Amino acid sequence: MHSSHKTKIERRLKIIAGQIRGLQELVANDTYCIDVITQTSAVKQALTAIEDIMMESHLGTCVIRQIKGGQEEKAKAEILKVYQLKRK
Amino acid sequence: MHSSHKTKIERRLKIIAGQIRGLQELVANDTYCIDVITQTSAVKQALTAIEDIMMESHLGTCVIRQIKGGQEEKAKAEILKVYQLKRK
Amino acid sequence: MHSSHKTKIERRLKIIAGQIRGLQELVANDTYCIDVITQTSAVKQALTAIEDIMMESHLGTCVIRQIKGGQEEKAKAEILKVYQLKRK
Amino acid sequence: MHSSHKTKIERRLKIIAGQIRGLQELVANDTYCIDVITQTSAVKQALTAIEDIMMESHLGTCVIRQIKGGQEEKAKAEILKVYQLKRK
Repeated sequence: MHSSHKTKIERRLKIIAGQIRGLQELVANDTYCIDVITQTSAVKQALTAIEDIMMESHLGTCVIRQIKGGQEEKAKAEILKVYQLKRK
Repeated sequence: MHSSHKTKIERRLKIIAGQIRGLQELVANDTYCIDVITQTSAVKQALTAIEDIMMESHLGTCVIRQIKGGQEEKAKAEILKVYQLKRK
Repeated sequence: MHSSHKTKIERRLKIIAGQIRGLQELVANDTYCIDVITQTSAVKQALTAIEDIMMESHLGTCVIRQIKGGQEEKAKAEILKVYQLKRK
Repeated sequence: MHSSHKTKIERRLKIIAGQIRGLQELVANDTYCIDVITQTSAVKQALTAIEDIMMESHLGTCVIRQIKGGQEEKAKAEILKVYQLKRK
């Protein structure tokens, strides 16, 4: 992974760790369900943003190297796997 | 696209066209909302299954040709685009 | 369902039926995979928009009647069902 | 929220907090992109499972009280909001 991508993802994961602590407090304090769900949704969207950065990085480095180096099947199967996971 | 993939997708689209006609009848006959939503969800899952076949076909043909032929940026940008669309 | 909701959904389903015919032509004409997937995604988003209208209608009529009429369990189980389907 | 639901959600959030720490280590150790994305997807699915529990709890308590107490509009608007968020 490019070091700029890595730094960006590490910063975002730190924020997400804080959001999870926030969620734990919301639940402990009996916050209104709708407000908790709004917050879990925000965390999922933050994780999706990380996935998009990871995927961009993966396509720009590993995939090109794999396909040029004869590992087409591996490259293809892995992209397909995360493409299918994206809906989950 | 491989002709076997094409045949499979054409057959599935025919089924989906029938499902849409079915949905139009459900709505015309004032079918219970929950049953209509169950059916729209089935159609979306059928479309997702087509996308997975298209993507597999795309990765196995176009992408490999593009990357070996110097069109890495195009290949990368397009996979990223449909990867992001997958959540919609 | 309110008749205004019904008219809106019938109009949208007609458009979607046309989009499916468009998809069938795209595939028959060997259109570029990425352009086909972009179109399947548009159809799924159109179906999601219909689900949102159906759900709004359901909540404004059936659910209120059910809960006031002692059918809380049915109302609850059905909303939960379509809520879980929404991710599929 | 029922206290059994609350306990279940608190336990799950604790596991998710651990998964986020795991993700931070994966990224720090330059783990293969595909394995990181597989893990972010697992966390999102764990958050979705929490949302389903929260929603079940919300429907079984707040919503029934709101609709019986004349707050139909609030109940309806909030369920619709989280229903739409579910796809994000």
